[in-house]
Amino acid sequence: MEKLVYATRRERFNAAHKLWHDEWDEAKNFETFGKCSNPNWHGHNYELFITVKGVPDATTGYCMDLKYLSTIVKTQVINKLDHKNLNMDVEFMKGMKTSTENVAIAIWEQLEELVNEKGCQLHCIKVTETENQYVEYYGGK
Amino acid sequence: MEKLVYATRRERFNAAHKLWHDEWDEAKNFETFGKCSNPNWHGHNYELFITVKGVPDATTGYCMDLKYLSTIVKTQVINKLDHKNLNMDVEFMKGMKTSTENVAIAIWEQLEELVNEKGCQLHCIKVTETENQYVEYYGGK
Amino acid sequence: MEKLVYATRRERFNAAHKLWHDEWDEAKNFETFGKCSNPNWHGHNYELFITVKGVPDATTGYCMDLKYLSTIVKTQVINKLDHKNLNMDVEFMKGMKTSTENVAIAIWEQLEELVNEKGCQLHCIKVTETENQYVEYYGGK
Amino acid sequence: MEKLVYATRRERFNAAHKLWHDEWDEAKNFETFGKCSNPNWHGHNYELFITVKGVPDATTGYCMDLKYLSTIVKTQVINKLDHKNLNMDVEFMKGMKTSTENVAIAIWEQLEELVNEKGCQLHCIKVTETENQYVEYYGGK
Amino acid sequence: MEKLVYATRRERFNAAHKLWHDEWDEAKNFETFGKCSNPNWHGHNYELFITVKGVPDATTGYCMDLKYLSTIVKTQVINKLDHKNLNMDVEFMKGMKTSTENVAIAIWEQLEELVNEKGCQLHCIKVTETENQYVEYYGGK
Amino acid sequence: MEKLVYATRRERFNAAHKLWHDEWDEAKNFETFGKCSNPNWHGHNYELFITVKGVPDATTGYCMDLKYLSTIVKTQVINKLDHKNLNMDVEFMKGMKTSTENVAIAIWEQLEELVNEKGCQLHCIKVTETENQYVEYYGGK
Repeated sequence: MEKLVYATRRERFNAAHKLWHDEWDEAKNFETFGKCSNPNWHGHNYELFITVKGVPDATTGYCMDLKYLSTIVKTQVINKLDHKNLNMDVEFMKGMKTSTENVAIAIWEQLEELVNEKGCQLHCIKVTETENQYVEYYGGK
Repeated sequence: MEKLVYATRRERFNAAHKLWHDEWDEAKNFETFGKCSNPNWHGHNYELFITVKGVPDATTGYCMDLKYLSTIVKTQVINKLDHKNLNMDVEFMKGMKTSTENVAIAIWEQLEELVNEKGCQLHCIKVTETENQYVEYYGGK
Repeated sequence: MEKLVYATRRERFNAAHKLWHDEWDEAKNFETFGKCSNPNWHGHNYELFITVKGVPDATTGYCMDLKYLSTIVKTQVINKLDHKNLNMDVEFMKGMKTSTENVAIAIWEQLEELVNEKGCQLHCIKVTETENQYVEYYGGK
Repeated sequence: MEKLVYATRRERFNAAHKLWHDEWDEAKNFETFGKCSNPNWHGHNYELFITVKGVPDATTGYCMDLKYLSTIVKTQVINKLDHKNLNMDVEFMKGMKTSTENVAIAIWEQLEELVNEKGCQLHCIKVTETENQYVEYYGGK
Repeated sequence: MEKLVYATRRERFNAAHKLWHDEWDEAKNFETFGKCSNPNWHGHNYELFITVKGVPDATTGYCMDLKYLSTIVKTQVINKLDHKNLNMDVEFMKGMKTSTENVAIAIWEQLEELVNEKGCQLHCIKVTETENQYVEYYGGK
Repeated sequence: MEKLVYATRRERFNAAHKLWHDEWDEAKNFETFGKCSNPNWHGHNYELFITVKGVPDATTGYCMDLKYLSTIVKTQVINKLDHKNLNMDVEFMKGMKTSTENVAIAIWEQLEELVNEKGCQLHCIKVTETENQYVEYYGGK
């Protein structure tokens, strides 16, 4: 019988953003997004937790080499988000609101294929925005 | 295809309580509940994590406005528990043992309808009693 | 209707280990396991989270007495792992690679029966190796 | 030349208390102490950090055996505060307001002599009341 | 004999900033400040710890009412920094580099007088920028 | 007037060790060091906090470039301790007991000159062994 295990790697990035709808004026943006709509931006220390699931390999004991996972995540995600402006600098967020919900979905889409081709499955992307708020995405389920 | 996201808000409350069964004497209470049965109470810094699930709105990027969620939770739950005695002061805990399990169930019942009528679903109530113990409630499933 | 609740207890152990495949030489071990293959060992402050699920008892409000759970875990697991060498000193890890994945599986197997005979079910074993890596095991599902 | 080192041990206790001045009525107590004056008590998970200073012993490398320090602290302090009511149950807090400031001072007085007779000096008592508030006491200096 | 106690309050703010010297071009800025010089900003969840020292009052047990301290800090500091751009939006940071060192000094200068006129002394401003970096300022000593 | 600021960088290392006095037998070692004397080693996730003090530079706002500090610390300390055996693998710990006290002193001695020649002063080395124990060293004062 195969034994599924869930392994999680944490990475971090520090970024600026604002919540802003271009078709609205500043007052309407403030009414909807509150202080998150400050025109001159604000920012966060985001934490990113990537969970993969798989069966541990008999020789290594790993379901996935988390050093390898970390390398993928740094190349595909962290290097593109860290010390950036999520609204202005990130190709894969273009045209999306930079809510934590959307950040999690966008990160999932950067990683899903690269994880799955290694024989594991991407299970969850969790993004922590502050110590009081976080979002989890399981591929839409 | 709709993309479900799970968003979590953390709140906190500091409360006194004891674990105590009225039909037992002090010795029997101590035998069952240990030091948690101290007649003169003890207390905790509780952490409360409220998880809702929903599909992010195209305009806001939110599955639910967590500022609004925080307002509901403060009004319905935190203001009634914070700096209170869970056994004596809380209408919605009357007649229940104040185990963390029951605290989580009772909080779920205060919030379920109010969350669900906003187009999201309440997914999980997690209550942390100490750094070593916490409880999660998913509506009974 | 019965109301399932999930209750979690945290325990900790500090242990030495290395990731090492006996049939390989030092270079091949280093290539696969990196610095985790240091022949003279390294170590971690492991955190262990044991989650059980059950219906709270009407009298106690507990789904399981977590003091009792803690006693089982200390006797069956912590006393055998804490301040030990996972590769050399632990009977129930003999012949297994000491990856965090395998540590979680082995701990599950020590606890499953003892938890389940108390009317609760073992739900999850989570083992945190560093602040950046952890593993969860739900019995193989 | 002797090399002073500062070593710290953390302990924890969960207690009920209220801030209350007997010569005032409930309204005046509320005006001064806010929700901390709830007549039916509230409570906290307190963290206690005990710092001693001394020169490491050539044979052990310890400035003080922290296992021994932990034993003293448990006997003299934790067993008297944990799962207690700070206003009602604690001999060494009798007649004092149970502000975190006073809790720290009272703990210092329980420990000073017992630490100092082991060849170390008690340096600091830190008491954390919530994640947002803590107090440090260095013997009054 | 008077007994000095040190009491600390934690507050938080989320802000955008960049490290940037106007007289340098982008390359020279990058050479000096690395990714912190991203022209489109980045941001942090800052934590602010304000420590005051004083002698506990005989009636209240407080060296300073930390609720009052929190009100001052929110009015004078947090409301001006939270969800702002430290380089563009903050009157009291004008003309200063927004290094954490300077943020701590600037906050001290906003608070010193207001704390000291309440009979306590401002002792330390600690600002945490990431989990790996923080700065403490004791008024220049 | 010059304004001294204290800046701190956190680094981490995972290592094996044991507390052991060669001139004693196993029983005497166990009597003194308890489970820390396990002959087959145990280990920890150590946290290292390096605090330097200095006056912020007018152009950069830094008292010391913490990226540069991090590079020194990684080269001189972390690379020599991380995933190592403190008793066997570390040149600068040879002949010393590997108590946390001695680890802190030894790290100070690796860093003092390299920090001070950059115009700052090394102020404190803090080493956290577990969540319950840490040591601070201020150069022996």
